[in-house]
Amino acid sequence: MKLIGLREGRDTVVGVVVGERVAPLTEVREFYGELEAWVTRAAEVSSGESPLADVSPLADVRPLADVTQVPPIPPSARVLCLGLNYRAHAEEGVYGVPDQPTLFGRWTASLSVGDVPVPVPANEPGLDWEGEVAAVVGAPLADVDPVTAESAVLGYAVFNDLTARTAQKLTAQWTLGKNADRSGPMGPLVTADEAGRLSDGLRLTTRVNGELVQEGNTRDLIFPVGEVLSLASRTFTLQPGDVLVTGTPSGVGYTRTPPRFLTPGDVVEVTVDRLGTLRTPVVGAEQR
Amino acid sequence: MKLIGLREGRDTVVGVVVGERVAPLTEVREFYGELEAWVTRAAEVSSGESPLADVSPLADVRPLADVTQVPPIPPSARVLCLGLNYRAHAEEGVYGVPDQPTLFGRWTASLSVGDVPVPVPANEPGLDWEGEVAAVVGAPLADVDPVTAESAVLGYAVFNDLTARTAQKLTAQWTLGKNADRSGPMGPLVTADEAGRLSDGLRLTTRVNGELVQEGNTRDLIFPVGEVLSLASRTFTLQPGDVLVTGTPSGVGYTRTPPRFLTPGDVVEVTVDRLGTLRTPVVGAEQR
Repeated sequence: MKLIGLREGRDTVVGVVVGERVAPLTEVREFYGELEAWVTRAAEVSSGESPLADVSPLADVRPLADVTQVPPIPPSARVLCLGLNYRAHAEEGVYGVPDQPTLFGRWTASLSVGDVPVPVPANEPGLDWEGEVAAVVGAPLADVDPVTAESAVLGYAVFNDLTARTAQKLTAQWTLGKNADRSGPMGPLVTADEAGRLSDGLRLTTRVNGELVQEGNTRDLIFPVGEVLSLASRTFTLQPGDVLVTGTPSGVGYTRTPPRFLTPGDVVEVTVDRLGTLRTPVVGAEQR
Repeated sequence: MKLIGLREGRDTVVGVVVGERVAPLTEVREFYGELEAWVTRAAEVSSGESPLADVSPLADVRPLADVTQVPPIPPSARVLCLGLNYRAHAEEGVYGVPDQPTLFGRWTASLSVGDVPVPVPANEPGLDWEGEVAAVVGAPLADVDPVTAESAVLGYAVFNDLTARTAQKLTAQWTLGKNADRSGPMGPLVTADEAGRLSDGLRLTTRVNGELVQEGNTRDLIFPVGEVLSLASRTFTLQPGDVLVTGTPSGVGYTRTPPRFLTPGDVVEVTVDRLGTLRTPVVGAEQR
């Protein structure tokens, strides 16, 4: 099934998609706090076993087109991102193929959803595309092995790790350039029962104004999701709702000759098997 | 005046300290959403102009000793941290003095408060101390100059940027080692009217089991708060409640011969003029 977030004032409410409609479930921290119960409830609704109106006191089923979507992620979530996790991408840049997973962070404040315009900061020549797959953690994980970690993944989503390269390369730390306003659009969360495992091989493509610029397959990840979550869990306790963005395949813009960046008017689409298409229009700095 | 956070179920409530008591104000997102009004209200309470009981419907004034404190920071806050921002510290390590501010990120999930035990991850020889000053942003900042940015600081707090050095140095990105569980203890937020400006020169000391290990002065920051917030605001829009941790002076543990780390039983105290002392006991991995 597919889960999305709905903006309700300062809160995010998690909802389950049923055809062209969405059934709101509960506030996002409550959702992840009682995850098993809410996922069970959502599955009943999604399969038609439970009438939509019985879901929760919040339930007022609405057409998808009528809601303001946000990522179904708690505000306190850690968004761990992997750099250099496809061999061909690691080789196309200046960094080379790493022997350990290269983790950097996004704050949830940088997340967005499909079809929301993303502004180019005034001090950048443009934004770079990075089509990716995000995994959302479904259980607390402390000092766990890779198998346990992977089996705790709640689901996956298409992600575009839009990058402000000038800011990214200002120093050795990438954080600044990876957190531009609305620069982390994320598709609906497709639960693991539907999405399968990334090692099954999900094809990923990125298109700019319709032109294919990236093509990869999740079976080629250098460091698989379970291994990376296991590593992170040795340092901190992952919580339900935390996100791991798994890295981008080759074909980004900055390594081209000449470099190519997204500028106002461009539209990027990232498509991943079983997860769908995430479409992002790029706009000017005046729309920050 | 001094502001602290109180844990109320899944929520954080901001409170103002009055002597040995605290007057709860409102939920943290509401506080930063209507910051000016709440700061005015808090100032009236703090100065005795307004009776404690009139503050808000939430108000039940309590002894400080009776509340569970958390940082007065919204869950979605960005916690920007500066590396290498005191010349002597930049020179004692392997990195050298930078020509641009080195920014990395903490997630709010790593924050804590004074007197809360911090565990050493099982795969680390210990934690390293980094006594610092944190600045909390008090207004939205997009593409602003350094003077505007500094004047928008709500206040300052003592911070200990406790570091898992093995994880920090696993790759070129420091994120993992800077986010161990409860590894970012933070003191009460002292508003800027009381704390003054960091360029006034606040003396900072770090003690381990009473022994002085770091001594610095905020007038020696290579990149001042206003300059760094201005830089960040060119890439993303800072929001009220975002935090900038300003870097540590020389004297950390890993650069010593032999290296020295905090292990279970150790107690670190960071003291900063006008901001107070932040005390942190270190415990074993079994207390994660």
